[in-house]
Amino acid sequence: MTKPDGRKDLMRLHRKAKALSRLPATRRDAERAVAAVLSGGSIWSSIRLSQVPLRYLTTFWNLMIEEGLLKARGDGLELTQEGKHWVTSCNIDRPADFNCRRCDRTGLDSRRGRLSTVREMFIQIASQRPAAIRKYDQGYVTEETTLARLAFAWEKGDLTGKDVIVLGDDDLVSVALALSGVCRRIVALDIDQRLIGFINRTVRSYGLTNLEAMVQDLRDPMPPSLVSQFDTFFCDPTESFLGFQVFVGRGLACLKGEGSAGYFGLTRVESSLRKWQRIQRFLLSRGAVITDIRDRFHQYANWGYVEEMRSWDWLPVKVLPEEIWYESALYRVELLRKPRVANEKVSGDIFTDEEAATT
Amino acid sequence: MTKPDGRKDLMRLHRKAKALSRLPATRRDAERAVAAVLSGGSIWSSIRLSQVPLRYLTTFWNLMIEEGLLKARGDGLELTQEGKHWVTSCNIDRPADFNCRRCDRTGLDSRRGRLSTVREMFIQIASQRPAAIRKYDQGYVTEETTLARLAFAWEKGDLTGKDVIVLGDDDLVSVALALSGVCRRIVALDIDQRLIGFINRTVRSYGLTNLEAMVQDLRDPMPPSLVSQFDTFFCDPTESFLGFQVFVGRGLACLKGEGSAGYFGLTRVESSLRKWQRIQRFLLSRGAVITDIRDRFHQYANWGYVEEMRSWDWLPVKVLPEEIWYESALYRVELLRKPRVANEKVSGDIFTDEEAATT
Repeated sequence: MTKPDGRKDLMRLHRKAKALSRLPATRRDAERAVAAVLSGGSIWSSIRLSQVPLRYLTTFWNLMIEEGLLKARGDGLELTQEGKHWVTSCNIDRPADFNCRRCDRTGLDSRRGRLSTVREMFIQIASQRPAAIRKYDQGYVTEETTLARLAFAWEKGDLTGKDVIVLGDDDLVSVALALSGVCRRIVALDIDQRLIGFINRTVRSYGLTNLEAMVQDLRDPMPPSLVSQFDTFFCDPTESFLGFQVFVGRGLACLKGEGSAGYFGLTRVESSLRKWQRIQRFLLSRGAVITDIRDRFHQYANWGYVEEMRSWDWLPVKVLPEEIWYESALYRVELLRKPRVANEKVSGDIFTDEEAATT
Repeated sequence: MTKPDGRKDLMRLHRKAKALSRLPATRRDAERAVAAVLSGGSIWSSIRLSQVPLRYLTTFWNLMIEEGLLKARGDGLELTQEGKHWVTSCNIDRPADFNCRRCDRTGLDSRRGRLSTVREMFIQIASQRPAAIRKYDQGYVTEETTLARLAFAWEKGDLTGKDVIVLGDDDLVSVALALSGVCRRIVALDIDQRLIGFINRTVRSYGLTNLEAMVQDLRDPMPPSLVSQFDTFFCDPTESFLGFQVFVGRGLACLKGEGSAGYFGLTRVESSLRKWQRIQRFLLSRGAVITDIRDRFHQYANWGYVEEMRSWDWLPVKVLPEEIWYESALYRVELLRKPRVANEKVSGDIFTDEEAATT
């Protein structure tokens, strides 16, 4: 658990570094500045890993040195004894690295490192899950995709020591997160009682103590106990613009504020680039910045209701798919301030718009 | 060369499919719909490759079938004889595939396929290039990065049969493009006479007939002969907001309009996420949608003026970098309409703002 003192110090140092450097850095940049020195290596390696504006970064590090938390050693920086205690109390770990070794680090290899142990267990659990049903517009990503998403968020520092919420979880992200053992708290919401039952049984069988799963219709307002409580959200919104606003809006409402992050998928199959543009405007207007768009990152296992989809009639060749065909991009956003989102009941069709194909 | 007839037909089919499906698709979606059937495979494989809203896609394909250009065959679609001639006259090729086979296709492997032959030649040519100089804020990406960027754009369909402009080319993107042999026309601009001389000598030595390189200061208005003439631009802007606006604004001004694409890099080292947000607003307001943000895609070779950078003084440990440390994200944008950008002379410091570190 986070001790209050470490975090308070972190915020104090952040405010000082922000004032001195006069850069619009966030508290999250302070975390990244600390995490980057934990990997060892030269100062240039720490600069590379940090992903923080250099002017703020060096100001922050110089303050840590002044306060006896950090010192120069050889060509790099290392924590003092006091610094080590402090970092533990801040619950900050060194950046994870799942870069693929084959393709010049442009890809993520979820077979590497600490994910290799999560992998086997997760695939076994997922093999028992309930089937996707049309009623809730379900369709889950492959186990490899859930693991790659986990690797991605882990590298970004959005998991270690963090409170994480999953809004709609037929992908079983919450289970994979719990198996990784690095999050502080995990909450999974879904409208589907079958799924929540399955996750809760998994929690008991595997002793995943920091994961709670509960039934929630995202059209209803979020329970106040979940609002502004999380560092990170995951969701896979229905793709009508209304559905998107509801799912991602609820996700944003659950975030603590500046520096919190959100993940979601968005297809090209059911969303034109004009809808993408509208969605991007929505995100920016709510105080978020888009940090990543990884095209075709998510691959969906085929579901059983293909012949019932509205698009079945449109197909010039009517055969059932035997391979993966439905993909979506992975978006990551980060908040630069408290999000402006209403927490009201939404009525109306969140599943279908004129671009919908799988409903 | 593109024959006018094929393109005209493509536009006619596009307008018809757009009206029938009532989706805000672009002419580029029509190209993608055609390219997707060229890879063979099942209809689901073509749907996956297309990256086009399914409602428009199936409408477009059904129109092609009606006009005798396309027919069902087994579980997929194939061109008729007439369709094959037509596609050749449209200058559309099947989507390239450089997906990494190791990491569940999350990465790009520029050692694969047609890039393997480009690779060797490009690395040899690049070894002779002029050194990066501080005067122009130069600093080029590694050869592997230039090749990965090429692979990325090739997969997106932004190169084959396209007119491409490179605004500032110390990365030698234009040379890699010319070696690939798939673009229709390539123009490289740079302020640095040394670089333009080098590219032009390479053009002569290697017989790269479709590449022209010329000196241009991007603070000056673009020559009218280059405005609205290109399908794709590449640039690596200086990161002051003014510099960014100038570089990317000139790129947008060179594009033909709807469906044209632009590529550029943006760092975290010299740009806060607040600046990222401002840049994203700028892009959307100019009629673009952001289709991709690949974090840490670009890796820069170390340059010779590290001790002269303004950030040298800030470093708590002053050693020269021995490994790669400067990275940037790859952005891709696509236009949904003619861009709104002024083509005026810009004065003022395009190199430095309060977040700058390497100037």
